[in-house]
Amino acid sequence: MRFRVRIEPDGKTALIGDEQTFFDGLTAANIKFRTDCGGKGTCGKCKVFIEGRCTELTSQERVLLPPPELGAGYRLACQVRPLSDCVVTLAPETRLSKRKIVIGGISTALDVSPSVSKVYVELTPPSIDDPEPDWERLKEGIKRQRRVERLDISPRALSKLPETLRAGDWKVTTAILHNDLVVATEPGNTTHRILGAAVDIGTSKIISYLVDLTNGEILRTSTLENPMMPWGEDIMSRITFCLESREKFDHLHNILTEGVSNCLHAVCQESGFPVSDIYEIVVVGNTAMHHFLLGIHPKHLALAPYVPAIRNHVDLNPAEVGLKINEHAGLHVPPVIAGFVGADATADLVAMGIDSSEEMTLGLDIGTNTEIFLGNREEITTCSCASGPAFEGYHIRHGMKAVSGAIERFWYDEAEHSWRFATIECEAPRGICGSGMIDIVAELFRRGLIDSSGRFRSGDREFLVSGSSSGEITLDQHDIREIQLAKAAIHAGCAILMKKKNLTENDIDKVLIAGAFGNYIDPENAKIIGLIPDLPSQKIRFLGNAAGTGAVMILLSSEARERATRIAEGTRYVELAAEREFQTEYLDSLHLPHRDRGRYPNVWNLVERSMKVGCG
Amino acid sequence: MRFRVRIEPDGKTALIGDEQTFFDGLTAANIKFRTDCGGKGTCGKCKVFIEGRCTELTSQERVLLPPPELGAGYRLACQVRPLSDCVVTLAPETRLSKRKIVIGGISTALDVSPSVSKVYVELTPPSIDDPEPDWERLKEGIKRQRRVERLDISPRALSKLPETLRAGDWKVTTAILHNDLVVATEPGNTTHRILGAAVDIGTSKIISYLVDLTNGEILRTSTLENPMMPWGEDIMSRITFCLESREKFDHLHNILTEGVSNCLHAVCQESGFPVSDIYEIVVVGNTAMHHFLLGIHPKHLALAPYVPAIRNHVDLNPAEVGLKINEHAGLHVPPVIAGFVGADATADLVAMGIDSSEEMTLGLDIGTNTEIFLGNREEITTCSCASGPAFEGYHIRHGMKAVSGAIERFWYDEAEHSWRFATIECEAPRGICGSGMIDIVAELFRRGLIDSSGRFRSGDREFLVSGSSSGEITLDQHDIREIQLAKAAIHAGCAILMKKKNLTENDIDKVLIAGAFGNYIDPENAKIIGLIPDLPSQKIRFLGNAAGTGAVMILLSSEARERATRIAEGTRYVELAAEREFQTEYLDSLHLPHRDRGRYPNVWNLVERSMKVGCG
Ligand code: FES
Ligand code: FES
Repeated sequence: MRFRVRIEPDGKTALIGDEQTFFDGLTAANIKFRTDCGGKGTCGKCKVFIEGRCTELTSQERVLLPPPELGAGYRLACQVRPLSDCVVTLAPETRLSKRKIVIGGISTALDVSPSVSKVYVELTPPSIDDPEPDWERLKEGIKRQRRVERLDISPRALSKLPETLRAGDWKVTTAILHNDLVVATEPGNTTHRILGAAVDIGTSKIISYLVDLTNGEILRTSTLENPMMPWGEDIMSRITFCLESREKFDHLHNILTEGVSNCLHAVCQESGFPVSDIYEIVVVGNTAMHHFLLGIHPKHLALAPYVPAIRNHVDLNPAEVGLKINEHAGLHVPPVIAGFVGADATADLVAMGIDSSEEMTLGLDIGTNTEIFLGNREEITTCSCASGPAFEGYHIRHGMKAVSGAIERFWYDEAEHSWRFATIECEAPRGICGSGMIDIVAELFRRGLIDSSGRFRSGDREFLVSGSSSGEITLDQHDIREIQLAKAAIHAGCAILMKKKNLTENDIDKVLIAGAFGNYIDPENAKIIGLIPDLPSQKIRFLGNAAGTGAVMILLSSEARERATRIAEGTRYVELAAEREFQTEYLDSLHLPHRDRGRYPNVWNLVERSMKVGCG
Repeated sequence: MRFRVRIEPDGKTALIGDEQTFFDGLTAANIKFRTDCGGKGTCGKCKVFIEGRCTELTSQERVLLPPPELGAGYRLACQVRPLSDCVVTLAPETRLSKRKIVIGGISTALDVSPSVSKVYVELTPPSIDDPEPDWERLKEGIKRQRRVERLDISPRALSKLPETLRAGDWKVTTAILHNDLVVATEPGNTTHRILGAAVDIGTSKIISYLVDLTNGEILRTSTLENPMMPWGEDIMSRITFCLESREKFDHLHNILTEGVSNCLHAVCQESGFPVSDIYEIVVVGNTAMHHFLLGIHPKHLALAPYVPAIRNHVDLNPAEVGLKINEHAGLHVPPVIAGFVGADATADLVAMGIDSSEEMTLGLDIGTNTEIFLGNREEITTCSCASGPAFEGYHIRHGMKAVSGAIERFWYDEAEHSWRFATIECEAPRGICGSGMIDIVAELFRRGLIDSSGRFRSGDREFLVSGSSSGEITLDQHDIREIQLAKAAIHAGCAILMKKKNLTENDIDKVLIAGAFGNYIDPENAKIIGLIPDLPSQKIRFLGNAAGTGAVMILLSSEARERATRIAEGTRYVELAAEREFQTEYLDSLHLPHRDRGRYPNVWNLVERSMKVGCG
């Protein structure tokens, strides 16, 4: 006999048989419960309120429901079956819904469902009459509380098991990775302590995030210079260095894993949490960093046809690649997309959400290599261009990274008739970071101090940005050339992708810009220099370090992890080197904003207005 | 529509639908094919001859079947469906049948189906138009040839993949463990080279077997002294040593893994095969050795209620326990039965085949600890008794292991009226091994030189076994006492198990004796001293090192591996320490052959006859 059950607050209706619990019936109807035991009647978390006739209170319900809730008529869905048509209301805390989480400026709704979870069990000690071995005893205990298909224990956890069980007087907490492998056991109940870490290995810096896996909170972020910098600011020099011998590769591999370990230790030390509280680490990086980390020689990334060793994600033990960190933690390296589009790009896409958006989106992650994405839920196309490290401060005389003291904003104050700037953390100016460079070049062009080819009109060789007691900060002709080269590569990439998809500027609903070159880019100025296409500013958003945000999302959510796999498999890669039009587009893009004025109508309008006003 | 298909040479009949291939239909009817591709139409190995109407020749059949077989009307079962009732005959080489294999004196029918297998693939090189990453490309290639559900690659194999693929010009062989993990790739076709190793860690020695996994042949055996001997001949002293500190345990763990590594390197060196040809290693040993190897402190094995850390088998990477051997090899440690009945006992049972026999069998593996098994396919009961290392030559003045120069047989030559002995490899006598001790004590008792209590009747203190230029070899009163203690413990264990099952000597169909104390035990003499019950000699068989044999079987056959799991889970353990009758039985068993003459009627008959004859 099947009854009609209305589910509140959804208003859905499900048919539930009289032999079926509400838990099973509702789960089949795709209503998800936030429980620990998965319907075994041990966690007490599947609380519902039922109107209608149903089976009697069970002993588990009497034990697990607190008296006030019992009194109020709450039931446990996994303990009760319907005896008539009913209306069932899920307790709010029972409902598995997405949480709103803010990571690095991106606010996102996320199911907090990390790959590692903890289970606390109380076991009966063994005796001569019950000599079940330790592991089998523990497994039984876990299975009483948790639905698991198969369950193994890591050799390392096994080697400590007898001591832990006895130290905890047979009351222990186990950390389970991927719901099938016990990686650690701890005496007593430690279920509230479960951290994870996400790491973004950039070409020039490594950023680590310490995350509370129980609620998704980011506890701390740390940044370290990538220790491979002395072997080249760009990836090609590092790969070239390794071509000489296997030892050189091994050396750089060790340098990198040490850097990642240090960055993880730093974030723990600064936050006061022990490293041993970390149970999973997600590491993203471009394909070269990905290969260096995994101990794969990256030489074939630099040789046509530029194929990576693996696309798929890799799950392994940190020790297998020489990471000196928690031996019980899992290491997850998300999938890469193509030879020059790495796991950091996959993480970008997870954070940008292009794969689940209706809107036609242009996404950029600007760095030494810039990844460009164009698409929506239907299809995403990507390419990578060598934009160079200018926006990160390299090759620019007074360039610097986006850290304290960097000039990050620059503008002409028309009321005061003077140039103004702002530095990060309001410190005395020490140099110019990426966003500051964009502002300066845009203002110089807009005010007519440099022409469309980037040349100083006056014949000057440099522009004084700040003259203070600590010295002068300038931007010279060479610096402007470097910025033009960088922005031209990026714009040409965008243009090729748009052509590939037969799209014009008008078809683009949204532009998302990520990168580590400042806290904020002025969208107007980005357009004025021609870094991005000429689109209304309200369509442009700046995301900060999207790769780091995506890595945190992959750490926190199984859904995000699955999205990463689909993204890496489904994204279409365009090899710019094989595109005949790229060179032309690149040369045209060297101009400010572009050789073809028709492509930047709004920018030219604005520039012409500003030029009339001049700059005092 | 379903057709009736008679299968020859079995004579079975199966119903096969017209939508089903013969391969699927026959597999469903439990007829197993020996194929590489599992029904994908790429290996050409599922050859059958069909009488009756069926679907037409496919292009695969034209390619894969050699012309003479095509001409003779052979078909590939995975390519053809029935169109009428048929008779199908499997080509003999197609039939997956068991092979007869002889291991350490045991001849057994075994399906050679190791956990590791090799697949050779030829891949299309990548190009700009086909930039599929290396691993995905390889996986595709493997999946074209082999039915695999999921397939991963080990981090180590991945790190070498790009080089190997290119070194082999995209023609490579992959070694796959457990049908789901690629552990190695090698340039070219190396499918014929695939070795495995089995290791038996005994308390006093480590034996390694090098096995050709393509055909089950044992290529070489090596024996090394267990390097833990200096820390105690018996297990308890070694555990006690470790109680003092974690460092001491770690030290012994390292000593042992080094010993196992050495033994593996030795067997390879002696046979001339490179260690890198080994893809899987199966290691058995008693529970203490099992724990030492896996890095688990064995202290709780020595404390009531004597529970091991794990019963289940453990699959891991040798490096995880510090074994210095092939990193690409898998390490399989079979399950243990109870605190004192280890993975070596599981291997004993696999070799003895008690779990699949109708006959009520008494099995013994005699060593420093002796494991005793009693049962048949219905149920097996086991116990372990501390019999001491006397039979292995320890605590016996002129005792020695069963190696070259050991007196292994001893008898009274009635025609010549003199004592005679034989040594291993006919070398000059250097001492007495276990089987020799049994012979000497039995002959002394039978000829009336010692009485039932083991005392020399003449008041002598020793018996001269051999007096030669290289010195005298004797057996003295103390030695005889040691042998009595050992045999009493073993006999008492047998007696308790028989009582537990309500069996008498007459109910026992077979006695199987294993152990490393000689190449052969005289069954009469074993009965005369009361080591085993008084049963007709034709019921008694000596197996040699059954644990090693079982380990080789587990290495070679998935069926044996599954049996090991069922054996470990199903065998009933009797804790002798908890048996009140054990002490009485032990004291009674100290006598030769036993205090209760009624238990040894045949022995007493014989002894009385011999005594009359005397010894000249
Ligand atoms: S789901 Fe855990 S008690 Fe019902
Ligand atoms: S099973 Fe391989 S060809 Fe038929």
